[in-house]
Amino acid sequence: MSGKVTCDMAMSLDGFVAGPHQSLDEPFGEGVDGRLHRWMFEEPEAHAAVIESITDAGAFIMGRNMFGPGRGAWDLGWTGWWGEEPPYHAPVFVLTHHPREPLTMKGGTTFTFVTDGVAAAMERARAAAGDRPVAVAGGAHTVNQCLAAGLIDELRLHVAPVLLGQGERLLAGAGNLDLEPVGRPTGTALVTHLTYRLPRR
Amino acid sequence: MSGKVTCDMAMSLDGFVAGPHQSLDEPFGEGVDGRLHRWMFEEPEAHAAVIESITDAGAFIMGRNMFGPGRGAWDLGWTGWWGEEPPYHAPVFVLTHHPREPLTMKGGTTFTFVTDGVAAAMERARAAAGDRPVAVAGGAHTVNQCLAAGLIDELRLHVAPVLLGQGERLLAGAGNLDLEPVGRPTGTALVTHLTYRLPRR
Repeated sequence: MSGKVTCDMAMSLDGFVAGPHQSLDEPFGEGVDGRLHRWMFEEPEAHAAVIESITDAGAFIMGRNMFGPGRGAWDLGWTGWWGEEPPYHAPVFVLTHHPREPLTMKGGTTFTFVTDGVAAAMERARAAAGDRPVAVAGGAHTVNQCLAAGLIDELRLHVAPVLLGQGERLLAGAGNLDLEPVGRPTGTALVTHLTYRLPRR
Repeated sequence: MSGKVTCDMAMSLDGFVAGPHQSLDEPFGEGVDGRLHRWMFEEPEAHAAVIESITDAGAFIMGRNMFGPGRGAWDLGWTGWWGEEPPYHAPVFVLTHHPREPLTMKGGTTFTFVTDGVAAAMERARAAAGDRPVAVAGGAHTVNQCLAAGLIDELRLHVAPVLLGQGERLLAGAGNLDLEPVGRPTGTALVTHLTYRLPRR
């Protein structure tokens, strides 16, 4: 038995999950200034269940650009944005074109670097997660690849009342398809939570 | 005293208000098949207040591509998609590059063709509406022009659980700005209604 594949993304109303030019100083790119995630930091109690569910998975997949600002060959001193004890507490499979030895962090998080594509990463994540969910953690390109491949079962969008106008666009390249809403929208003035079930293809 | 400027748009989750290749047979373009507007036709009672508010304005602005499928010189036999008695019951200002005499329809709708741009159309619509709202009726390009010019006060999005993947994109070119949510999201499994107040610029 296999758990479902989930994906939580904070998104602007115009469909961006980050601005352009991600960097060490601005992990979410230029022009964002934390406005996609204010709800998590300013109202954690109001969104406690949502926040908890984001990291409630048996394994994670993320793109290299979510793991760090570097490109090309690895800086082996970089161990992610999250300090010594990342919030995942589970195996994390990082998509990259550049091989690297696995990293074991405090609290049960391991980063394993996968160079043979998103389908291979998903297989390994499923095996690691057992009957628990696999979470696709981001960024936009990785989520869009998974959507196009029909690998995501449940998409949870956290829509901030912001227009960015440019940046990393989510939901691009997935084609033409119907989604099934799960529950009703919830949220506050800082965010609207929308959940959809996707057809597995 | 001047009424507010509103804009209601049915939109896919990935931000499109029509597919590509609008035509007489497919006014909303290819690949849409009515899926952005199912809520209006299958559940009119559930959305009665929303539907009523869409045409509750003292004047309207729309782009020529919303008025009809023709391009270039006018086919003077074309009087809109809506038959003899359009649902507007008020002056409608149609943006076009091609001059045309005004059309008076049954039930109080008049179509006036404006060739000197969106700001001029808005001035005329405001004058016609008096203290009632002006509604920007669409399509995407017209709404985006109005957003970029800071002419819209209240944006009401009706988000269908559909990905289109291509077509006429809303919310493009408006730049980077914060919106103010009005009320809480409402809706059913066929649509989520989201309302935002915009800064007038």
